[in-house]
Amino acid sequence: GDALVDHHRGLRQGFPEVIFGAGKSAGQVERIMASLAAKGNNILVTRLDEAKALAVKEAFPSAMWHADARCLTLEQRPIEKRGLGTVLVLSAGTSDLPVAAEALVTLRMLGNEASHLYDVGVAGIHRLLARRDVLFSARVLIVVAGMEGALPSVVGGLVDRPVIAVPTSVGYGASFGGIAALLGMLNSCAAGVTVVNIDNGFGAAVAASKINRE
Amino acid sequence: GDALVDHHRGLRQGFPEVIFGAGKSAGQVERIMASLAAKGNNILVTRLDEAKALAVKEAFPSAMWHADARCLTLEQRPIEKRGLGTVLVLSAGTSDLPVAAEALVTLRMLGNEASHLYDVGVAGIHRLLARRDVLFSARVLIVVAGMEGALPSVVGGLVDRPVIAVPTSVGYGASFGGIAALLGMLNSCAAGVTVVNIDNGFGAAVAASKINRE
Amino acid sequence: GDALVDHHRGLRQGFPEVIFGAGKSAGQVERIMASLAAKGNNILVTRLDEAKALAVKEAFPSAMWHADARCLTLEQRPIEKRGLGTVLVLSAGTSDLPVAAEALVTLRMLGNEASHLYDVGVAGIHRLLARRDVLFSARVLIVVAGMEGALPSVVGGLVDRPVIAVPTSVGYGASFGGIAALLGMLNSCAAGVTVVNIDNGFGAAVAASKINRE
Amino acid sequence: GDALVDHHRGLRQGFPEVIFGAGKSAGQVERIMASLAAKGNNILVTRLDEAKALAVKEAFPSAMWHADARCLTLEQRPIEKRGLGTVLVLSAGTSDLPVAAEALVTLRMLGNEASHLYDVGVAGIHRLLARRDVLFSARVLIVVAGMEGALPSVVGGLVDRPVIAVPTSVGYGASFGGIAALLGMLNSCAAGVTVVNIDNGFGAAVAASKINRE
Amino acid sequence: GDALVDHHRGLRQGFPEVIFGAGKSAGQVERIMASLAAKGNNILVTRLDEAKALAVKEAFPSAMWHADARCLTLEQRPIEKRGLGTVLVLSAGTSDLPVAAEALVTLRMLGNEASHLYDVGVAGIHRLLARRDVLFSARVLIVVAGMEGALPSVVGGLVDRPVIAVPTSVGYGASFGGIAALLGMLNSCAAGVTVVNIDNGFGAAVAASKINRE
Amino acid sequence: GDALVDHHRGLRQGFPEVIFGAGKSAGQVERIMASLAAKGNNILVTRLDEAKALAVKEAFPSAMWHADARCLTLEQRPIEKRGLGTVLVLSAGTSDLPVAAEALVTLRMLGNEASHLYDVGVAGIHRLLARRDVLFSARVLIVVAGMEGALPSVVGGLVDRPVIAVPTSVGYGASFGGIAALLGMLNSCAAGVTVVNIDNGFGAAVAASKINRE
Amino acid sequence: GDALVDHHRGLRQGFPEVIFGAGKSAGQVERIMASLAAKGNNILVTRLDEAKALAVKEAFPSAMWHADARCLTLEQRPIEKRGLGTVLVLSAGTSDLPVAAEALVTLRMLGNEASHLYDVGVAGIHRLLARRDVLFSARVLIVVAGMEGALPSVVGGLVDRPVIAVPTSVGYGASFGGIAALLGMLNSCAAGVTVVNIDNGFGAAVAASKINRE
Amino acid sequence: GDALVDHHRGLRQGFPEVIFGAGKSAGQVERIMASLAAKGNNILVTRLDEAKALAVKEAFPSAMWHADARCLTLEQRPIEKRGLGTVLVLSAGTSDLPVAAEALVTLRMLGNEASHLYDVGVAGIHRLLARRDVLFSARVLIVVAGMEGALPSVVGGLVDRPVIAVPTSVGYGASFGGIAALLGMLNSCAAGVTVVNIDNGFGAAVAASKINRE
Ligand SMILES: Nc1ncnc2c1ncn2[C@@H]1O[C@H](COP(=O)(O)O)[C@@H](O)[C@H]1O
Ligand SMILES: Nc1ncnc2c1ncn2[C@@H]1O[C@H](COP(=O)(O)O)[C@@H](O)[C@H]1O
Ligand SMILES: Nc1ncnc2c1ncn2[C@@H]1O[C@H](COP(=O)(O)O)[C@@H](O)[C@H]1O
Ligand SMILES: Nc1ncnc2c1ncn2[C@@H]1O[C@H](COP(=O)(O)O)[C@@H](O)[C@H]1O
Ligand SMILES: [Mg+2]
Ligand SMILES: [Mg+2]
Ligand SMILES: [Mg+2]
Ligand SMILES: [Mg+2]
Ligand SMILES: [Mg+2]
Ligand SMILES: [Mg+2]
Ligand SMILES: [Mg+2]
Ligand SMILES: [Mg+2]
Repeated sequence: GDALVDHHRGLRQGFPEVIFGAGKSAGQVERIMASLAAKGNNILVTRLDEAKALAVKEAFPSAMWHADARCLTLEQRPIEKRGLGTVLVLSAGTSDLPVAAEALVTLRMLGNEASHLYDVGVAGIHRLLARRDVLFSARVLIVVAGMEGALPSVVGGLVDRPVIAVPTSVGYGASFGGIAALLGMLNSCAAGVTVVNIDNGFGAAVAASKINRE
Repeated sequence: GDALVDHHRGLRQGFPEVIFGAGKSAGQVERIMASLAAKGNNILVTRLDEAKALAVKEAFPSAMWHADARCLTLEQRPIEKRGLGTVLVLSAGTSDLPVAAEALVTLRMLGNEASHLYDVGVAGIHRLLARRDVLFSARVLIVVAGMEGALPSVVGGLVDRPVIAVPTSVGYGASFGGIAALLGMLNSCAAGVTVVNIDNGFGAAVAASKINRE
Repeated sequence: GDALVDHHRGLRQGFPEVIFGAGKSAGQVERIMASLAAKGNNILVTRLDEAKALAVKEAFPSAMWHADARCLTLEQRPIEKRGLGTVLVLSAGTSDLPVAAEALVTLRMLGNEASHLYDVGVAGIHRLLARRDVLFSARVLIVVAGMEGALPSVVGGLVDRPVIAVPTSVGYGASFGGIAALLGMLNSCAAGVTVVNIDNGFGAAVAASKINRE
Repeated sequence: GDALVDHHRGLRQGFPEVIFGAGKSAGQVERIMASLAAKGNNILVTRLDEAKALAVKEAFPSAMWHADARCLTLEQRPIEKRGLGTVLVLSAGTSDLPVAAEALVTLRMLGNEASHLYDVGVAGIHRLLARRDVLFSARVLIVVAGMEGALPSVVGGLVDRPVIAVPTSVGYGASFGGIAALLGMLNSCAAGVTVVNIDNGFGAAVAASKINRE
Repeated sequence: GDALVDHHRGLRQGFPEVIFGAGKSAGQVERIMASLAAKGNNILVTRLDEAKALAVKEAFPSAMWHADARCLTLEQRPIEKRGLGTVLVLSAGTSDLPVAAEALVTLRMLGNEASHLYDVGVAGIHRLLARRDVLFSARVLIVVAGMEGALPSVVGGLVDRPVIAVPTSVGYGASFGGIAALLGMLNSCAAGVTVVNIDNGFGAAVAASKINRE
Repeated sequence: GDALVDHHRGLRQGFPEVIFGAGKSAGQVERIMASLAAKGNNILVTRLDEAKALAVKEAFPSAMWHADARCLTLEQRPIEKRGLGTVLVLSAGTSDLPVAAEALVTLRMLGNEASHLYDVGVAGIHRLLARRDVLFSARVLIVVAGMEGALPSVVGGLVDRPVIAVPTSVGYGASFGGIAALLGMLNSCAAGVTVVNIDNGFGAAVAASKINRE
Repeated sequence: GDALVDHHRGLRQGFPEVIFGAGKSAGQVERIMASLAAKGNNILVTRLDEAKALAVKEAFPSAMWHADARCLTLEQRPIEKRGLGTVLVLSAGTSDLPVAAEALVTLRMLGNEASHLYDVGVAGIHRLLARRDVLFSARVLIVVAGMEGALPSVVGGLVDRPVIAVPTSVGYGASFGGIAALLGMLNSCAAGVTVVNIDNGFGAAVAASKINRE
Repeated sequence: GDALVDHHRGLRQGFPEVIFGAGKSAGQVERIMASLAAKGNNILVTRLDEAKALAVKEAFPSAMWHADARCLTLEQRPIEKRGLGTVLVLSAGTSDLPVAAEALVTLRMLGNEASHLYDVGVAGIHRLLARRDVLFSARVLIVVAGMEGALPSVVGGLVDRPVIAVPTSVGYGASFGGIAALLGMLNSCAAGVTVVNIDNGFGAAVAASKINRE
């Protein structure tokens, strides 16, 4: 065996171990899924290549492939909704969509109401201001942005709810694969913004889900 | 005038603008405090030097100086408690205490129940494991650590509640003023850990407070 | 002699060489000033310590010391106004004021109409939006901001005029002495924002002045 | 829909949103172009792969592909010239040509007179000095250079007009993908040089165009 | 000849020069192997591509290919066991397995008893604590971990024996190809942890082997 | 109380918690020393300022101050020698002496035979080669070097015993406070060299001591 | 035309412009070669891909392809030897050979006597010491090394002649594509070592050639 | 004794070990000087504080203090001139003078003819071009520059002799203590420029001296 699945986690954390697909072979993913599925769990695989996903789907035909999010899900039992409110995912530009999608898939697998507001980058701030109602009705906000990563500061200054910022690797040159956005978010002048790793839509969703849990 | 106080913030965010003391003269701090105090607000000043604090206290004798946290507070009206539960601050080593103290002062000014568990670094993990009861009873956890910043991963793997990690600049050599701890926390293998800026106990407390609010 | 003054510059660039005070002794500054003054020039010294400035003022009693901007000026003849319009300097927070002040002193020495809008950081965006009239009436805009440096993106998305962004070293931890703000500005999603060195209010003013010249 | 086009921008900024081709599928580019074209706009797509460009051209046969600049343009109405003078693009070496070309295409789409001086790097400075007449006749200068990025300092010392520096990723080893050139330009000893992101010929052209506008 | 084999090393260091496969052609590897084999040595090649390995195996049919470790070994004489005890290799996640495997192959070629404990990352610390017996029975421990690299601190706090930490390039975003794990390990609060280069399972094994030698 | 002393460590690790003096007040150091001393332990304090050391010595008059090593020791019972052989500390230049001294003090407090070879930097390699006998008689070697940090590679190529490299912050400019030496050591072409943090003579000594223990 | 060949350089520098092949198409290389060849020059192209080289050779059949050095040369007239002595190229490991080869081809095209000593890395220092005669007979030395880049320090401490250090990108992990070697060389404790860019065998050869010229 | 002076060096390298003053006490400097003086050597101490220099001068009254260069010299016998020609030191700005001065003192102690051209930075290139005669008459050139470090490229393109570039730590913000200048020089488009460490006027002079030696 090449993995020691942390079956205990479902108990401790309320959801079984999520499979990190990057760097695993289709065979490895399948074996871990089988081990988790045998216990009746719902399963989430993130950062999977399309080619591997299709291979894995042959073993688990009822699994669903989310191309935009690069996630594979297997729902063996209905997902129980159990949040205090809605988690809103905002994204700045077209290229930030895959990271936002990973967050959305994860949020739903973890039992949250989730919605999405996209293409609301700060260079055309009227687009964001026009949707203040949606901002104000969310319980938790995940803000996904690349380049200079300024969106969480503006959002964090408008709302009173927890804001989780996700820098993306979108950009070129001095964006340094997301470092510019990451640093911007860590230095946000809007107090109380917290940050996750570059492109880590999954981690932001897990954090939001814990916040949203009664 | 040298500052345009954001009086609107109390309405939007539930607490008036907090004064960032670093780089301001005692006179500047006093003028901003006066402007906020005139509206009957409770006031928090962070990152203040002892010398400046003492000067400011002459103008506001009822202000309280928190030497360990380098914060000055002025309570003009009783602080209303209004969280869902307790916010627990954990710190790894003796040198991380000032950052933890800044978080604690902020948490209390913002109306939270807050408690502290200190000197529970991962190199002597029995100290942490012995206090699992305290961990499990918190609603939100703030984990403060310097050097390799490993504590949030261990805590995040044990509890089911939101964990906010605060890297500190404690260390030398390749700790690079907190970069090692910051990177460790951003790459935490415990899903759902979120991170704030190096030494930013204040920001972690604001985030925890928003999470803890009904 | 320890400097070879570029007297030719007044002809080529429309203003004589500006003296970079940092790292020069009061004696060195005085000798260069004397050489420039002998030709009837107006003189600007930037990045000067207060102590050196006072020493130099003994030799040039009519020189003026701008404490906030850390600049010394000597006006030997009236400054001729010769711009196409107004240069507006915006600054995000209280701590960015010295850099903004350096830009303002430089702009005026170079013959520009200049005005200032301060404390309009993005975390309280209503403060900026409330002054849209001032933004729209400027011919060139200099935007000074530290921390995440998001202000130029918002301003650049609102106005149609050239925007020059000045990152400042204000912040701590992952602001890395202004790197976070610098990278944010270089990656601005508002097209056409250009950037100068960290804390370089002087350089931004020279650029704005060249743009503002008929 | 996967993009929320900022149609408002044409009004605010004088030219509709430019499409950032990198990381978008041919289908996405087409849909955004269709949305912009429907309003009768002239359209510019930057950073497009040749393969995608050819696919898009099937939907928009009158679009023009600029291979050297990796840009696609669609002119639906004549471009009105409206600058104060000429924008001159200088490039240092053969490998900097694509970035210069992107600047030139953008300048022309935005209604500027534009010309080009190439292969005038500082290691053979007589090539630049021989063309001083061209330098002096420009209203705005864009200087494109990789490796040590020294050209803007030399040009900025010769002319009295605004100089925008564009670092390129040309080089190897310690050029670090353009960081060396970027830092060189930010530290230019020629006062008033402003800088854009590595390889951002587009951004430099937008800035120059705003400067050149009456 | 394109290499000057250090035949002297077997005498000085107790094992002949190990061949670093990366960046060598199959032909180069073969020629160096032939030169070493002619002296009757056992041979180890690390960091070899599968394709090259297969080519080399045609010349040395009795060589063994370790796919997981990307190592090729040739045993021409029995390996004499000569350590003071067991070397234990621990790895944190599934993706750290190749580096652990490289360490294991190297340890065995150098005559050590070696065993492996895998998937014992700190986010599920019960998995590690459950195997304390195995930890305590080792003479030397090699701890392989990517992402935040926290495992060596926890292990180093539990055992009294030498711990060698190996950061891996596993992770994404702010893991920066292993820098986060490397810095974490260099700053370990567990005193006495020493560190080798990112992904250098080989080097850790050589160090452990020297420690384990009587 | 501001510290939770890990009294358990003496049992687990064979020596009680060592006090990290940096960033602690004299009072804090005294209180922790008192708590350790009460159990009859020998005590080591590292990275202490001279001023604080003298203050602490008033409370513990029999404590010994090692000025070169910036360490304070308190021997309450005789130190038992219990190593397999000698630990040799080599240092490259005059300025590396304090780090070597910290290693030597620590080694002796932990019960090791220790000796020192100094000023044997690689630019005058005859100095090192002339002492090969000393090199060959050591059981473990600690190699302390700043600037380019090349000494461990040369030593590691000569001896068959474990080599622990300690980069120092000695140097200027591109030594970047020890980064150049650290990187050099991590990339040592002498297999089996392990590395500790910059200036961490203490950590190297603890590691050597564990290796040297039967 | 896409290049402005600096024909003047042959006069100023004693050898015509060398063509930097990277990032140029075969057609661009051909056109520049034709322009240089028309003046009867000997021609050197560096950093050329094998595929492009073969294409170019069809236009210039008498050109010679140096596969190891990735250089193409065209000798139209005999190369006149004109140095003060021999230039010795030393390389540390097998993987440094291409950079050494680039230096050797360049040295010979520029009219120098050149020889090569390879595989003399510092981890087996007897290999270098055994060839002291060769070291002492050189007029200029080029030392090529990757990983920790220690060889120039050892060589620079032995000889009295100019030493030019060339860091290579050989290595992995914390070698950071040659940064470790570059920093090591810049901080060499052997006074008078000068350094060129990572992998820049060409530049080192040009420098050596100028030194070697009467 | 705290230093093992490399007396052998005078034989190997033609000048005795130069004393690196930084981080040494006045007492340490004195003891090493005494040891060198006893053999009749001329002595050079670099990077010495004024205070220490004055203390040392009491023991060696005939030593000479070069305040601008921060060097102390002791001439016990006449310095024999023995170069092939003149070494020319160029410096860009007023603040680069101390580094240039260190190079000049070192050059003269090592027996070279040396001269100086200052304040010839590239932003006023006519100042440099006006002195072409001086440039062309030098045998070796040392070019000292901070900020963007462009001067060596321009000089290297004009002359045919060896050029050694010395980056200085002059500047602020994104000059990063000399990194910008260092990178600029390593990437110089003028072939054959070699580079030494930031602020290392001493090292450049030693290299130039070896080049200038018959
Ligand atoms: N996209 C992701 N980013 C970061 N961590 C993840 C991601 N997906 C899964 N994980 C974590 O990776 C762990 C499993 O890692 P592994 O044992 O390598 O499969 C799980 O516990 C998850 O918490
Ligand atoms: N605050 C400043 N930041 C950057 N450059 C400056 C500043 N003040 C003056 N300068 C430039 O520094 C040059 C003079 O440098 P120096 O010869 O060292 O006095 C002038 O030509 C100015 O362009
Ligand atoms: N080459 C470019 N570099 C930087 N920004 C660009 C470039 N081309 C277009 N843009 C900007 O990218 C924005 C559109 O981004 P998106 O919504 O992802 O298509 C436009 O508003 C442009 O200002
Ligand atoms: N300014 C300097 N920069 C770099 N190296 C120096 C300098 N001055 C002296 N050195 C070198 O430092 C060595 C002596 O170092 P140390 O043994 O610490 O005194 C000598 O061999 C010199 O080569
Ligand atoms: Mg968009
Ligand atoms: Mg403790
Ligand atoms: Mg404010
Ligand atoms: Mg060219
Ligand atoms: Mg796992
Ligand atoms: Mg010495
Ligand atoms: Mg070899
Ligand atoms: Mg000057």
